[in-house]
Amino acid sequence: MLLLLFVSCKKSEESTDAKSKEGAATAATSDPLPSWNDGALKSDIIAYVEKVTKKGSPDFIPEEYRIATFDNDGTLWAEKPYVQELFAFYRVKKMVEAKPELAQKQPFKAVIEKDKTFFEKGGDKALIELVAATHTGMNEDEFETSVNDFFKSAQYPGKNVPVKQIRYQPQLELLNYLRANGFKTYIVTGGTIEVVRGISQEFYGIPKDQVVGTSFKYKYDGTKNVVQREAALDHFNDKEGKPVGIQLHIGQRPVFACGNEGGAGDIPMLQYSQGNKYPSFQLLVNHNDSIREYKYQEKDNASLNAAAKNKWHVVDMQKDWKKVFSDN
Amino acid sequence: MLLLLFVSCKKSEESTDAKSKEGAATAATSDPLPSWNDGALKSDIIAYVEKVTKKGSPDFIPEEYRIATFDNDGTLWAEKPYVQELFAFYRVKKMVEAKPELAQKQPFKAVIEKDKTFFEKGGDKALIELVAATHTGMNEDEFETSVNDFFKSAQYPGKNVPVKQIRYQPQLELLNYLRANGFKTYIVTGGTIEVVRGISQEFYGIPKDQVVGTSFKYKYDGTKNVVQREAALDHFNDKEGKPVGIQLHIGQRPVFACGNEGGAGDIPMLQYSQGNKYPSFQLLVNHNDSIREYKYQEKDNASLNAAAKNKWHVVDMQKDWKKVFSDN
Repeated sequence: MLLLLFVSCKKSEESTDAKSKEGAATAATSDPLPSWNDGALKSDIIAYVEKVTKKGSPDFIPEEYRIATFDNDGTLWAEKPYVQELFAFYRVKKMVEAKPELAQKQPFKAVIEKDKTFFEKGGDKALIELVAATHTGMNEDEFETSVNDFFKSAQYPGKNVPVKQIRYQPQLELLNYLRANGFKTYIVTGGTIEVVRGISQEFYGIPKDQVVGTSFKYKYDGTKNVVQREAALDHFNDKEGKPVGIQLHIGQRPVFACGNEGGAGDIPMLQYSQGNKYPSFQLLVNHNDSIREYKYQEKDNASLNAAAKNKWHVVDMQKDWKKVFSDN
Repeated sequence: MLLLLFVSCKKSEESTDAKSKEGAATAATSDPLPSWNDGALKSDIIAYVEKVTKKGSPDFIPEEYRIATFDNDGTLWAEKPYVQELFAFYRVKKMVEAKPELAQKQPFKAVIEKDKTFFEKGGDKALIELVAATHTGMNEDEFETSVNDFFKSAQYPGKNVPVKQIRYQPQLELLNYLRANGFKTYIVTGGTIEVVRGISQEFYGIPKDQVVGTSFKYKYDGTKNVVQREAALDHFNDKEGKPVGIQLHIGQRPVFACGNEGGAGDIPMLQYSQGNKYPSFQLLVNHNDSIREYKYQEKDNASLNAAAKNKWHVVDMQKDWKKVFSDN
């Protein structure tokens, strides 16, 4: 389970303060998706939004049902490596600085010494140990501080940019466009909920309570008046866990759902969305751009096969995105 | 645990579409809380809202941190009896209509025959059986339909009014007033989350995803493309469960928290709110109005004692509320 957390955890959020309905008026005259190349996909997105927001149209969706869910890792920002992984390593570093003797203790030792074989051999157990040691055993206020500190200076390996600049510009525009048309946007990530909440508003314009993610067990300590994070997984929000997280946190099926191929983590969410009684839209990002981003595919092509079978829309990153990353 | 669900479950929601910022301007000239009698409590509420929303004030709270949480049963609507209980009995009736042989089977038999001793003797086990039988074992779409059907015609015993009319008018005004001032309002109830979501928008102007409540285990069934409700409690959202539910669903401490005395269910939520780094406000409804509503107290007065000790504000229903129930 926890192995999967590292292997396929997905997180993503971004936006600007785009709740303004004025956006909708602007959209009619100017291009709401300037970083998307003109073509069938862009036209389909716009046609969908227009038909479901047009009063009197047989496809009209009342505003309270305009729920849009986005995966994060590989859907709203890059996932090679996962930012969640960078955070775990950051935590190890900080913890060892505060308590140097930890450097001699596993799993800290393996991280410090970049000993990949430790985690390969140790499997789930070693990873559970690492996540538990770095993500729990403190209260929520302390954890939030730690997440904020990490994001203040986090750089993305390989790209040499702040983590904020691995957000996909076309997706930021899509989030804004949907919100300007009365959609409520959510992140539904395999990543841990509090790490993503740390940047959801600033990076994606998505409030903390609109983040659905993997969570640990919490316990309220009345004496200290804090919520304590316990070293036990409560909900793993990937694959079949995504519709479950959506029901618990949102309480209704999304009409618009967007995920990515790479770890097959979003198939159930897109399928669940397609079961909506209202007209729905499913979008899957295909990572086929080795020059501007990354190129990787699932061995069995499960996500792309599901997309073909169910007529989901696929983002051909090379072809559909004029620009990949956000400048700032 | 489940016994507590019946004994102290709290649910409540109400509002009108009051997101409009224009409300704030109106509030300055007309009375935003007409069903509250003039006095210290009403003045304190207004003074708090004004100081934390005034830009440049040392007490200013940025909008994204203006989180207001309300218990439901006994706080937003009456709790003698719990509407949740009425729903369970309604479900029994419907299930027996569909399958008459259930009338001979417990716990249905006891409900049909109004056999209180069955539940008194059976304790937790009998109640778990009843809640499991009536609230789970179906998928979310089916459960939602069932909740909607119940609320269409539900009457409140003793008062002979539709359930909607046991909402407290002063609280509806308070929710609207807070929203008009940029607060995001939530229901944090001991009741089951989907039952409250069934009326949260219509009764209180609170969207489904802003309801935090008791939840059962869910499981996604990919073949049928539904989320199935399983007969096991996932989270019990009362007492110490409330700060936990708040962390999971909202992700930050409320600055405004409102509960009621009667079952001591809201003490941890009010205490948790008071730990906010921003100026906070705690409000506790005291049920002392035997004529217009109900009069009941906790044996040990735990909630009122906590209020006195922590300087929480107490609603003296007799004195502070000009009008108790909503007319429609």
